Amino acid sequence: MTGEKQPSFDWNRGFVIDFSLLDGMSKTGVPTKRRLSQMRGMFLDEAAFGEQVKNGDPLVYEFFELGAPDTPGDIAFGASITYPGKVGDEYFMTKGHFHTVLDTAEVYYTLSGQGRMVTENPEGDVVVHDLVPGAAVYVPRRYAHRSVNVGTTPLVTFFAFRGDAGHDYGTIESKGYRKLIVERGGKVEIVDNPKWK
Amino acid sequence: MTGEKQPSFDWNRGFVIDFSLLDGMSKTGVPTKRRLSQMRGMFLDEAAFGEQVKNGDPLVYEFFELGAPDTPGDIAFGASITYPGKVGDEYFMTKGHFHTVLDTAEVYYTLSGQGRMVTENPEGDVVVHDLVPGAAVYVPRRYAHRSVNVGTTPLVTFFAFRGDAGHDYGTIESKGYRKLIVERGGKVEIVDNPKWK
Repeated sequence: MTGEKQPSFDWNRGFVIDFSLLDGMSKTGVPTKRRLSQMRGMFLDEAAFGEQVKNGDPLVYEFFELGAPDTPGDIAFGASITYPGKVGDEYFMTKGHFHTVLDTAEVYYTLSGQGRMVTENPEGDVVVHDLVPGAAVYVPRRYAHRSVNVGTTPLVTFFAFRGDAGHDYGTIESKGYRKLIVERGGKVEIVDNPKWK
Repeated sequence: MTGEKQPSFDWNRGFVIDFSLLDGMSKTGVPTKRRLSQMRGMFLDEAAFGEQVKNGDPLVYEFFELGAPDTPGDIAFGASITYPGKVGDEYFMTKGHFHTVLDTAEVYYTLSGQGRMVTENPEGDVVVHDLVPGAAVYVPRRYAHRSVNVGTTPLVTFFAFRGDAGHDYGTIESKGYRKLIVERGGKVEIVDNPKWK
């Protein structure tokens, strides 16, 4: 969370929250915003990164954390919006994360836009899924996952995972992902991350 | 399942399946269909029920069971389509169920149509949520839930719940729900179920 005030929801008796099918925005929920400056070290081209942070520090993505109870019986859910753009030839993306409870899956349903879901497990198995409107992607237990926008409009997904799964951002922040999603000659390509540790 | 052959999905490495944002249908998955004759005893007006079963036995709803592993770390998900119609003055609806693992929640995201999600817990707390496109409904732990189509077009939702939650249809089939959703004078009303045991 970055300090925005989320309304409180009744996880014991149920509730309704709206997420626009067009842009993922909500009249009742408050999104968490991630600007480029919050992603230092995650894009390969550090010079391009520095320029863009100086020139407006663009919003890269936002998502909803509604405060689901930290229990295995609850389900955390919300919308995620990744904006179009690139840093050098690398597409805008989310930080991505493992679940703290590693053995928990997540499902993403694509509402709008064109993207990739990059997933990898600790043993190094990398699977990249295509996101198009109507595509539901199953991110299995034990796989880190990152949304990448390879199109020209916002990439909007609806997501759901176990309430106590938690987010482990640290592993990805220190190690990076094994693969990057870049534009080469007008095409989307998956390439090795030369900085992967 | 009613015998349709579902393709197998890779729950260990992940997969993509398409669900149309317009009608919930899938090019790869196979829906389970529920015709009115499979819902004997669930609608109040038994004469109207018998007539409609004789005259074509309409499809009331369909949904996707993709075969998620029966574990607490996996997530079952899919689309559910409830068709418009009524039996007497009672709107078409799903059977509804408790989860066998009672202490597990479920989330529904409405893609299309107008409906209600009727929820009740074993202690008799009844909560009815409005479903409109873009409405995400949180069905909490311990609440039975049933989708009701109160509009004139299919009610389409995307749903997610824990892989091992399971479906307990029996309790609802023998007891019914405490409340019915009916049309009275052109309006949607919530009324007591006179047959509730």
